[in-house]
Amino acid sequence: MVKKKVIKLHSLDGIKLSSIYSGMYPKKRLDLSIIELDEKSIVSGIFTKNKAKSPSVIISEKHLKSGKPRYLIINSGNANAGTGVDGIKDIEKYCKKLEKEFSCNFKDILVFSTGVIGERIKKNNIIKAIPKLKKGLNKENWIDFSKSILTTDTGNKICSKKIKICGETVTITGVAKGSGMIHPNMATMLSFVATDIKISKIQLNSIHKKLVDRSYNMITVDGDTSTNDSSILISSRKSKLSYEKLNSKDKNFFYSSIESMYIELAKCIIRDGEGATKFVSINVDKIKNKKQGKSIGMSVANSLLVKTALFAEDPNWGRILSAIGNSDSSIKDLSNIEIYLGKILIFKNNKIYEKYNEEFAVKYLKNSDIEINIVINNGKESVTVWTSDLSYEYIKINAEYRT
Amino acid sequence: MVKKKVIKLHSLDGIKLSSIYSGMYPKKRLDLSIIELDEKSIVSGIFTKNKAKSPSVIISEKHLKSGKPRYLIINSGNANAGTGVDGIKDIEKYCKKLEKEFSCNFKDILVFSTGVIGERIKKNNIIKAIPKLKKGLNKENWIDFSKSILTTDTGNKICSKKIKICGETVTITGVAKGSGMIHPNMATMLSFVATDIKISKIQLNSIHKKLVDRSYNMITVDGDTSTNDSSILISSRKSKLSYEKLNSKDKNFFYSSIESMYIELAKCIIRDGEGATKFVSINVDKIKNKKQGKSIGMSVANSLLVKTALFAEDPNWGRILSAIGNSDSSIKDLSNIEIYLGKILIFKNNKIYEKYNEEFAVKYLKNSDIEINIVINNGKESVTVWTSDLSYEYIKINAEYRT
Repeated sequence: MVKKKVIKLHSLDGIKLSSIYSGMYPKKRLDLSIIELDEKSIVSGIFTKNKAKSPSVIISEKHLKSGKPRYLIINSGNANAGTGVDGIKDIEKYCKKLEKEFSCNFKDILVFSTGVIGERIKKNNIIKAIPKLKKGLNKENWIDFSKSILTTDTGNKICSKKIKICGETVTITGVAKGSGMIHPNMATMLSFVATDIKISKIQLNSIHKKLVDRSYNMITVDGDTSTNDSSILISSRKSKLSYEKLNSKDKNFFYSSIESMYIELAKCIIRDGEGATKFVSINVDKIKNKKQGKSIGMSVANSLLVKTALFAEDPNWGRILSAIGNSDSSIKDLSNIEIYLGKILIFKNNKIYEKYNEEFAVKYLKNSDIEINIVINNGKESVTVWTSDLSYEYIKINAEYRT
Repeated sequence: MVKKKVIKLHSLDGIKLSSIYSGMYPKKRLDLSIIELDEKSIVSGIFTKNKAKSPSVIISEKHLKSGKPRYLIINSGNANAGTGVDGIKDIEKYCKKLEKEFSCNFKDILVFSTGVIGERIKKNNIIKAIPKLKKGLNKENWIDFSKSILTTDTGNKICSKKIKICGETVTITGVAKGSGMIHPNMATMLSFVATDIKISKIQLNSIHKKLVDRSYNMITVDGDTSTNDSSILISSRKSKLSYEKLNSKDKNFFYSSIESMYIELAKCIIRDGEGATKFVSINVDKIKNKKQGKSIGMSVANSLLVKTALFAEDPNWGRILSAIGNSDSSIKDLSNIEIYLGKILIFKNNKIYEKYNEEFAVKYLKNSDIEINIVINNGKESVTVWTSDLSYEYIKINAEYRT
């Protein structure tokens, strides 16, 4: 269900990329990438909350604290998760080669992996590929990079824009991957976004956290948080524009520009949700706080019964009501809530709305983009959660993943 | 996947039942029942934690506190949920008829409904059926009752035994329904169990809570808690044997006899899980406390990725590891855990077990009864959670439920 669009990915000075087929998959396709960052760059990282973290995540988290990231190495086809000490050793071995080729330190390397869990990574393939990757480094290689990180994804997920602030151009370019094992608790996928605005590490981290909370942490395909989720926000600091020096209006403009990109990438993941036939926005309005709204939205988004009803284009709104009732939000009384499909009011005053006509709801559900609007009527906040339906295809993809 | 067995359901003096087709379904089948209890009987009830409670649940909870249950009226085909004040009024109307026919009080009636959510119940069908139901009352009608409460279930769920304590015979007979919308937070289904042992209401309540925690609260099909779940434990108090007067050994014997029945009924629900092709026991051993174990077991049981791998008979144990990592248990370090499929050790010392041979695991998964054994190695407790796999058929059943 990916909408194809032709898009130019703006390159950024100070950031070079290179991708290759290293043999992680039986079929030839890009599966290994390196990103080289200029010395001036700074990097912010947010990682999975899954307690069975991949050695890649463990090392990247460690290096982000102790080192100064200059090289990112990213492979698909193997998550290097559930591999324990062996997984760490394998990473150390192929990073040794990186250290040599680029005269850098291990602690300045970040490592990312995505794919099957529990199998040893083909470290020799990576070692062999590194010199070739080095030769291929070029700042224009974003599209190849976006393809090299895909697994069950049916299309690459990219976003890029140039914005003007105080007469200066700021570039933001990002790519992401993710299709299954998607559930918010940090990023549930891989995401790499770069900008050239001059910014401090503290501010970059603070913006990054907010961005992830509003985008990747608001999506779910199947309620499963992966062992390898990583979101990386890079600033090459090559622009003349300094974030610190902006007034609050311009700061907000920069933030909202980059936020809309994160939301776009997050939505791309949902549109490409495994087996998805529907893109579903769940808007929870008039709530006390965002936490309450997210709890309600996620309960609806993760209900298999709601998801299968959406797949069947059946306005079985009782399942939505039941899922709201199952949320762990603090709301006890549901008698004031309203439930809409799109603009069609279905439930109000604790019962079905008198003028509700199921025929219209059936017709509305034939759309591929669906809105479920839930009005709680106990506050002024609102949140949106995005999800997909659950189809035969999801079962097929995940039953046949390793075969 | 229901195993058919011929079983005699022992009747109990003081408990009469009657079932009928009242027209809740287009196709003729039993869909409405009444249970009449002798004056001496006592009743314990545990209800759904879903905040969108059905009016049936609201009324039954209220009457259990204020009244002395003599009549239970149970229908399938309509959950009378999401119906608010109208739903309450409908119940009041058909209970009026019950009051008249049986010269009883509204507050002595308990009401149960299961089926589609959000539609008004056909109260006139119920009103019309009550005189006929009255005529049919008979203590032998347990099997018909067990059939009348089914919805998407493919078979009735029944269990019955007679045990001897201190030379006296105690009878326990129970029926349950449930197949989808099954997730523990109370009973996630309907269950009616009766015994004749003499027991106080306080003790019956205390035993009932423990029973539900060990059985229905340990199962999940799809992570959805219904709006109508109710578990009812009745004592007709017709036996000469008094629970109070038993020594602790005999008390334990009675408890374990009735617990094994509850677990059997809970397992019946999982075996009949919508679209289930596998019955899966997840044993979590050597844990600090049951709460921790349940959190881990449920995280594995509710992972769609684990469920689809089981359906595919694919020993993709990395998904089990990832699901353990996603549990909200207090365990932070997973490096000491062990994962087994049946007796086949797969994961130990934070990596794949050297002698693990995937062929054996593939062969093991061809069984219809699967054990996932997880050893946490940080305590002495253990719990078992039961679940089913996730198949194309689940999607089919739930996509076509109302069509």
